Amino acid sequence: MNLSHPERQLAFLREIDRLKSVVRLSPLIDRSRRENSAEHSWHLAMYALVLSEHAAAPIDVLRVVKMLLLHDIVEIDAGDTPFHDPSMHAGQAVREQLAAERIFSLLPDAQATEFRNLWSEFEAAESDDAKFAKALDRFQPLLHNVATDGGTWTAHKVNEEQVFARYGPTIQRGAPALWEAAARLVQEHFSNPPA
Amino acid sequence: MNLSHPERQLAFLREIDRLKSVVRLSPLIDRSRRENSAEHSWHLAMYALVLSEHAAAPIDVLRVVKMLLLHDIVEIDAGDTPFHDPSMHAGQAVREQLAAERIFSLLPDAQATEFRNLWSEFEAAESDDAKFAKALDRFQPLLHNVATDGGTWTAHKVNEEQVFARYGPTIQRGAPALWEAAARLVQEHFSNPPA
Repeated sequence: MNLSHPERQLAFLREIDRLKSVVRLSPLIDRSRRENSAEHSWHLAMYALVLSEHAAAPIDVLRVVKMLLLHDIVEIDAGDTPFHDPSMHAGQAVREQLAAERIFSLLPDAQATEFRNLWSEFEAAESDDAKFAKALDRFQPLLHNVATDGGTWTAHKVNEEQVFARYGPTIQRGAPALWEAAARLVQEHFSNPPA
Repeated sequence: MNLSHPERQLAFLREIDRLKSVVRLSPLIDRSRRENSAEHSWHLAMYALVLSEHAAAPIDVLRVVKMLLLHDIVEIDAGDTPFHDPSMHAGQAVREQLAAERIFSLLPDAQATEFRNLWSEFEAAESDDAKFAKALDRFQPLLHNVATDGGTWTAHKVNEEQVFARYGPTIQRGAPALWEAAARLVQEHFSNPPA
């Protein structure tokens, strides 16, 4: 393969069209179907634009948006790994690492390196930008579950204590004010179970 | 309605989930189904990150990404207006203006103003950021059509001359190097019609 600089960019942009066919467990809020990872990534980028003031520490909004736009691209090869299904977690890190290697390498070298580094930084969840991005990636499905009578919690028999344990630390760490709002919504949800 | 600042932000983020149900004419590259406006917006934001070096003038990548993430939100109320169907264009501007008013006003006032202004700037296509964003919004469907044996061109009997007239000026103005690549792809497409 001996593609020019722009040809490599266009090959990458064509390849990532496949993220639109990776289906997540979460339903759309109107419950008409399940969400795919491309539209989920769009929604998270909008979360970052709207909610940046609630980050635990000062963040670089463009870097956070970049991380969120590309954080799920590895799923084109590795698939979506449902949060509430631990049986799927084995081998996930290796599958995603190989996917990042293959897909980002379609780009010209400098961009491939930039995107791989942003993806690794997101996964590591140690920088302030990554902690906020991770918090939003937990916060959005929580809101969807609350808005759809429990969504994936109901389907996977996840109880209030488990919701607090699985969502709390990540949201709290990256966006404490959003966790305050989320915890209230979770409590309300579990004290008013659907009929 | 007397919602707090974060409640207004979350109401907006819930409302825009509906963009995932606005279906465009363009197919996905694998032709499994038509693209929706939320995943289209994600794809365009990725185009901006990858192709920013090809802008006709220096641009602010974060502003361009913001415009592209929110440019189609008005379609929640106004619907998608297919580019190749002029019968749908009447009243479009008014419908979209009312939609922008309603949907962005769900946000706290300062953000509502920022988003409405970014949307108007995109629509006006006069600033360097907006010209580049508009160029990408034309360039992506062109690539999809080339990658799917003509896609919406074939369906709407659009010929080579019409493609040059409808896509050329906008892409050329915002990203001349991309138009060079695009024009070659269009010429190849029309000189090798599918069997």
